Amino acid sequence: MAESRITSRNQDFAAWYQDVVLQGDMAEPAEIVKGCMVIKPNGYAVWELLQREFDDRFKATGHQNAYFPLLIPQSFLHREAEHVEGFSPELAVVTIAGGKQLEEPYVIRPTSETIIGHFFSKWIQSWRDLPVLINQWANVVRWELRTRMFLRTTEFLWQEGHTAHATHEEAVEEVLRMLDIYAEVSEDIMAMPVIKGVKTQSEKFAGALRSYSIEAMMQNGLALQAGTSHDLGQNFGRAFNVQFQNKEGQLEHVWQTSWGASTRLIGGLIMSHSDDKGLVLPPKLAPVKTVLVPIYRKDEEKGRVLEAAHRMGKEVGAKVDDREGQTPGAKFFHWERLGVPAVLELGPRDLASNNIVLKRRDTTAKEVLPQTELAARLPLALAQMQQDLYRAAKERLKNNTVLANSIGEVESILRDVTAEKGGGKFVMAHVKDDPACDVRLREFKATVRCIPLKDEYDGPGKCIITGEPADRRVVIAKAY
Amino acid sequence: MAESRITSRNQDFAAWYQDVVLQGDMAEPAEIVKGCMVIKPNGYAVWELLQREFDDRFKATGHQNAYFPLLIPQSFLHREAEHVEGFSPELAVVTIAGGKQLEEPYVIRPTSETIIGHFFSKWIQSWRDLPVLINQWANVVRWELRTRMFLRTTEFLWQEGHTAHATHEEAVEEVLRMLDIYAEVSEDIMAMPVIKGVKTQSEKFAGALRSYSIEAMMQNGLALQAGTSHDLGQNFGRAFNVQFQNKEGQLEHVWQTSWGASTRLIGGLIMSHSDDKGLVLPPKLAPVKTVLVPIYRKDEEKGRVLEAAHRMGKEVGAKVDDREGQTPGAKFFHWERLGVPAVLELGPRDLASNNIVLKRRDTTAKEVLPQTELAARLPLALAQMQQDLYRAAKERLKNNTVLANSIGEVESILRDVTAEKGGGKFVMAHVKDDPACDVRLREFKATVRCIPLKDEYDGPGKCIITGEPADRRVVIAKAY
Repeated sequence: MAESRITSRNQDFAAWYQDVVLQGDMAEPAEIVKGCMVIKPNGYAVWELLQREFDDRFKATGHQNAYFPLLIPQSFLHREAEHVEGFSPELAVVTIAGGKQLEEPYVIRPTSETIIGHFFSKWIQSWRDLPVLINQWANVVRWELRTRMFLRTTEFLWQEGHTAHATHEEAVEEVLRMLDIYAEVSEDIMAMPVIKGVKTQSEKFAGALRSYSIEAMMQNGLALQAGTSHDLGQNFGRAFNVQFQNKEGQLEHVWQTSWGASTRLIGGLIMSHSDDKGLVLPPKLAPVKTVLVPIYRKDEEKGRVLEAAHRMGKEVGAKVDDREGQTPGAKFFHWERLGVPAVLELGPRDLASNNIVLKRRDTTAKEVLPQTELAARLPLALAQMQQDLYRAAKERLKNNTVLANSIGEVESILRDVTAEKGGGKFVMAHVKDDPACDVRLREFKATVRCIPLKDEYDGPGKCIITGEPADRRVVIAKAY
Repeated sequence: MAESRITSRNQDFAAWYQDVVLQGDMAEPAEIVKGCMVIKPNGYAVWELLQREFDDRFKATGHQNAYFPLLIPQSFLHREAEHVEGFSPELAVVTIAGGKQLEEPYVIRPTSETIIGHFFSKWIQSWRDLPVLINQWANVVRWELRTRMFLRTTEFLWQEGHTAHATHEEAVEEVLRMLDIYAEVSEDIMAMPVIKGVKTQSEKFAGALRSYSIEAMMQNGLALQAGTSHDLGQNFGRAFNVQFQNKEGQLEHVWQTSWGASTRLIGGLIMSHSDDKGLVLPPKLAPVKTVLVPIYRKDEEKGRVLEAAHRMGKEVGAKVDDREGQTPGAKFFHWERLGVPAVLELGPRDLASNNIVLKRRDTTAKEVLPQTELAARLPLALAQMQQDLYRAAKERLKNNTVLANSIGEVESILRDVTAEKGGGKFVMAHVKDDPACDVRLREFKATVRCIPLKDEYDGPGKCIITGEPADRRVVIAKAY
């Protein structure tokens, strides 16, 4: 792979992001398929680690994986009025198949509530069949005009959970349980702090009663919606006639939820931790955690160094980069751009002193360790790095969260913020959940990211736009 | 789920298969999307286990996973003449996206040689970039007229490996290495014996120089192609201009391979081992290996039995079916249909005698064991079952393989064989790799399944159709 320079974050954050993604072998644009990308090996390996973290938690909470068709009869989308309105502009439509014009076109799933609703109606008859707790790992297609690798692509990979319950109360419990899992994986595994909250009615999922999300802050201060969990009420139950006989023998529509997290998270991961040298991956999501680079100049050093390198590499589970024809410098540069958390250096002088050098990717600090201590110290260093990345991101979130008490103040803080220039903030202000307020904020391209579940500020106040009572301060920001 | 009777294999093998799939919660037809199915939780869990087995072996042999777009510009298919001829009739075409007619339509990938070829041409410049060893887990769509769950569906899940090499020799090594992995997983994990061989020129993959396959025999004697590995030569290298500078500084086209195995394997698994009572899963691919059913009649027995059941279940890793309101009989019936390899029964009498009853799904034999021996004996029983399933399938393959020395003989053996009535055989006969021979066999709907890599018979002979010299006996059968 040709390696070239990485734009600095200060110069152009958007260009920096693109450089980090490309140089980190994470993805590249698939220019011949509109808005799509190729997820390259390093990026896909991160996705596999992330999938494992989610999947284990979904299964531990009683969900089972299943797989539903990619293609959905176009008419299905029309059964739920808000749903079709929300997704119609983004659909890819199959009109020809097997050499013939289709009588009814199929759309490529933009999400699967409709087709899964159809099957729920076949599977669910009685309260005994409930809850149904299904998850699907799949690709979806939404025709987007402006795309960015991982963050917004025409096709993306995700998981979509779909559940059906006997009561609204149970469904809401499920929605919040899955939101908690998203927050847990974001914070504990991705080292990316998030705010849990409710979307405004204007920003909710098309067809939901209420949408919940986790919102993270990127290094440029922009918000990234990193996972959503929807209380669908009985909307899809009615649209697809999913009914069950309750314990009293009466027919009721089921209460449904859906929740999803996607490859967009990898974009969030990159923009949370990476630096001007390239990709930084938290140890828990690094496909390769540690690389050992042997250093030797003369042929007589080579044998001894390589022997020790392989022995120590095996002992601590490090990949030994023993490629011929590459200088140690080129190797360090290579692994740095791939975001490997720890690089070990071992040369003749280290052999003589029984030491080894450990370099952390985030701090770039070098530490000289006795070889006998490496097996104990390396896991500690990685755990420390995981923690430090989280703390730094948390600190950044705190430092870039500000209060505002008028719409003018909000506008002056956010007006000139762009993905390129950065300078974004999370502005906490009292705003009512009223479409008029969302419209006003969009004048300067800001949105209510969420109404936090936990009020960490001063309780109720007056809406800075309508003057009406507002329950608590909400998060206003520019977002991806 | 409503449970109903299962057609016997003798009565109608095809109906039996459909019943086993439905009652085993493996899949159901998605009648509203032509030729598609829903993979249900038990079926998807088997797929996940199978994926893990393959994925571990792919990674151990140096392959990395990546992900390429679902949609392929239609013109890409036309770049390789045989490829487009082979796949055109089966394509699903997206002509509208984002509310607009597309200038160039996209096809949904039927396989990804073309789009991956495009990216290989960007990634590969020098011999130093080779080999490129990529695998993709994905869904693909091929518009099929006659479909059967798992065996042939319009959309299916699979893995497709795509590699590029500097020499033909290396590429052929790769093709055979992956064929060996397919055979290993089939035999050691699926307990499904296979024959490794080469496809005739008429039956090869559209665009390959040579296709290799593993062929398994189902209980009705029909063949199932269970994995294919293709030597693509330089065909796609030329079509997509994938060139590299060799060590001598000259430009050459790369030598490529591709290889795939799909959810069709699950159909093969079902038709290899299941019986008239329903699904039988080999222990290595059973999502739940052991279930313990506690038996009690009186309330005063319940507490003691459940306490012991949970204690023993935990000790041996068995799922305890402590559902209320279900008789033990209903529970046995339930787990039998789901193909659980071992069911344990524990009642008051067992408690009194310190015994426990172990029932194997395949033999349905009950064994009374001292409770203290269960932890040691259960894994042995499961290992024995895995072995016995393989032996039975191997025996069936042997007993239903016959020699024939004239085309009339072959025709009389295979003419009346159908998927419904069964009676299929693998007929070993000398047939030349000549399209005229394939045409003659298709007159009675048979095909050369493969030319075995290893000749286990009498060496060269005369082709039973053309009379010309033929290298060895080939496998002729009716197939899915």
